[in-house]
Amino acid sequence: MKKYLFTNPDAKLIEGGICAPLGFTASGIYAGIKQSVNSDSAAEGNESPVKQKKNDLALVHCSGICKAAGVYTTNLVKGACIDVTKRHIADGYAQAIIVNSGNANTCNADGKEKSEMMCNLAADALRIKPEDVIVASTGVIGQVLPIKPIEKALPALAESLSRDGGTQAARAIMTTDTYEKEMAVEFELGGKKVRIGGMCKGSGMIHVNMATMLCFITTDIAISREHLRKALRQAVGDSFNMVSVDGDTSTNDMLMIMASGHAGNKVITDSNANYDKFVLMLKEFCVALCREIARDGEGATKLLVCNVRNAKFAQTAKNLAKSVICSSLFKAAMFGADANWGRVLCAMGYSGEQFDPEKVSIDFQSEAGKIRVCENGAGVLFSENEAKKILSDDEVYIEIDVASGTESATAFGCDLTYDYVKINGDYRT
Amino acid sequence: MKKYLFTNPDAKLIEGGICAPLGFTASGIYAGIKQSVNSDSAAEGNESPVKQKKNDLALVHCSGICKAAGVYTTNLVKGACIDVTKRHIADGYAQAIIVNSGNANTCNADGKEKSEMMCNLAADALRIKPEDVIVASTGVIGQVLPIKPIEKALPALAESLSRDGGTQAARAIMTTDTYEKEMAVEFELGGKKVRIGGMCKGSGMIHVNMATMLCFITTDIAISREHLRKALRQAVGDSFNMVSVDGDTSTNDMLMIMASGHAGNKVITDSNANYDKFVLMLKEFCVALCREIARDGEGATKLLVCNVRNAKFAQTAKNLAKSVICSSLFKAAMFGADANWGRVLCAMGYSGEQFDPEKVSIDFQSEAGKIRVCENGAGVLFSENEAKKILSDDEVYIEIDVASGTESATAFGCDLTYDYVKINGDYRT
Repeated sequence: MKKYLFTNPDAKLIEGGICAPLGFTASGIYAGIKQSVNSDSAAEGNESPVKQKKNDLALVHCSGICKAAGVYTTNLVKGACIDVTKRHIADGYAQAIIVNSGNANTCNADGKEKSEMMCNLAADALRIKPEDVIVASTGVIGQVLPIKPIEKALPALAESLSRDGGTQAARAIMTTDTYEKEMAVEFELGGKKVRIGGMCKGSGMIHVNMATMLCFITTDIAISREHLRKALRQAVGDSFNMVSVDGDTSTNDMLMIMASGHAGNKVITDSNANYDKFVLMLKEFCVALCREIARDGEGATKLLVCNVRNAKFAQTAKNLAKSVICSSLFKAAMFGADANWGRVLCAMGYSGEQFDPEKVSIDFQSEAGKIRVCENGAGVLFSENEAKKILSDDEVYIEIDVASGTESATAFGCDLTYDYVKINGDYRT
Repeated sequence: MKKYLFTNPDAKLIEGGICAPLGFTASGIYAGIKQSVNSDSAAEGNESPVKQKKNDLALVHCSGICKAAGVYTTNLVKGACIDVTKRHIADGYAQAIIVNSGNANTCNADGKEKSEMMCNLAADALRIKPEDVIVASTGVIGQVLPIKPIEKALPALAESLSRDGGTQAARAIMTTDTYEKEMAVEFELGGKKVRIGGMCKGSGMIHVNMATMLCFITTDIAISREHLRKALRQAVGDSFNMVSVDGDTSTNDMLMIMASGHAGNKVITDSNANYDKFVLMLKEFCVALCREIARDGEGATKLLVCNVRNAKFAQTAKNLAKSVICSSLFKAAMFGADANWGRVLCAMGYSGEQFDPEKVSIDFQSEAGKIRVCENGAGVLFSENEAKKILSDDEVYIEIDVASGTESATAFGCDLTYDYVKINGDYRT
């Protein structure tokens, strides 16, 4: 796996993930929710597969109250946690996050009740108000969430909160992810060192229309609630709204940010240079996390990055890039390292955007090299062997020039593989 | 495979496919286009797989001039054949169809020229005008179409035209289809026996927004050009616009109908009872072909039929049904016979349509039985073993009741399998 390098030379990658910003601690634990998924089948005499005791409950806490903002799934069918969290951060404040994996707590009659109980249990353990708790769930839809394991685990979970707990927390929010996704970056803002940290989970049911599954970002920057909200919206447009694994928009998507203000910078209350720098850093931070989500998409063997250049409008560039990255046919071709560029042009064609196919050029690029496969909308002679080598890398760039303007956009995705089918052919049982 | 039964008791399935209506003959042949696909790789020293000599050139002819109408792909990137065919039937008349598989003749600088050459060659062999020839191509995008094999094969192809040639023609338009798709039906219209016949190919790059790949329908009904066009549009709305294999809208989609008038019925020039009956039959004929396209979708092991009932608007019912049938996650679950109904509700939720999730009920049904899995938007206890049995059938019905009106719709799709990935990971080479 390739390490992502921030384009901004000021940005320094640091350890600590979600706990890197000052004020934050985290913990993760196996509470027994993931195991409970199979109880129904087991009861009917099916053999229940032996499950490893993987973390399934995460807690994040800040020593003081934080400014908070979030963006959520656009799916009409929503996890109960979405409504509860929205209500809790309506005032722009939060102090803790409780997350379970293994069960989405969605499409259950008692969903909201359970989400509120999770907040109450976390608040009790942390001696804060339930209304300052963000709650999230991820996993199977339509199975009743067992609250007992959460109740039982919370004291130990709160007890183990620490500045080293980021990785345990990041593991506890995973479903079919193959590795935990966390990151932290440090940079200067108005003469002060400030930090952004975060964790996310992706894997499946990921689509471009705000489809993060779960992402939690912390920062110690001092910023107004209004500007935190605005910054998050700006960052999402070029990152989490540009990533797709399988075109399915989840019911439980949630991207939350909490700002502790502990860095001691002059509070950002204007759209000034400090604000702009924060947005730039936050955007790139989100892009870096999105790349991990796409790279580790269910069954994926490679990260696909589609750059569309020289479009007439920014939205055209975005929609073209997204259409390519979402095409099942193209994704399958990339799995097979097959330079089937016709599928790229085909996917652009049904994007709904206007462009001149006869002006399009397409290159495939990776660390193994770069090859032009299409010029002026028609094929050019190229070496299939060289193309195969380039496409066999685990990070492939699809460079598209539509030669009709100056706008560009990038979308992130992954290949479509046997393992995607395998994982999703039998996810519940 | 289950045989489709027309709901209209008047309709009688007959033999002959596209040649069943009076006046039509057809033929299919191996011209050598499919083989040529691999020449490039072979030249580079890759081992070229041994290819069977599968038909790749089809001809359909009518003894007299026909009324003709068509619907086409909505993809901005279009096969050259689309433009040429549109121009040729702009006057509402056609007398022959020439189709090649193995090469889409799309995204080639000389595409239109080649499509016109195909029409000229067919017209010469048949002693008709090139402007009365419909031309279609299907296969790999972006490889130059070799015209020599077509030129060489055309005399023999024209020579072998016969009323028994439907099956050979149906085979010649196949790409990754595993069997030829043809059908014919006979019924009475105003005291006369009339017939509709047809052939189509599907397999991959099939999506709901007019995505037939290729379909050719013949009839001996006497009808005005205007009413033929209108009937086709009506029939497509509930059939070819409701089928998806992989969400990719092809560049070369084309559904053409030709009416010879040889049945001798009173020419339909009004929207009268005879017209209504024709539309009804044509619609069901198209639905029957769509079921075959979905059933034989690339890598598919089963046909999925999603019925949405009791929606407020017809368009709502259509979009909900299509969203379910297009979900990669749901399709993978069906491959695994996993009753993951949460994915059904999830896909409905991101359809963009308004409905009340808490009113939704979902049943899975097949010849093995029927089982309720969701009621009022929440799970109900059901036997996983029974569900598995029902979903293991090769024809599965997803019955959704949204309890908010009286409108209904049906969409057709297939499961997502290892073989889909396999086929598309290495389609070109």
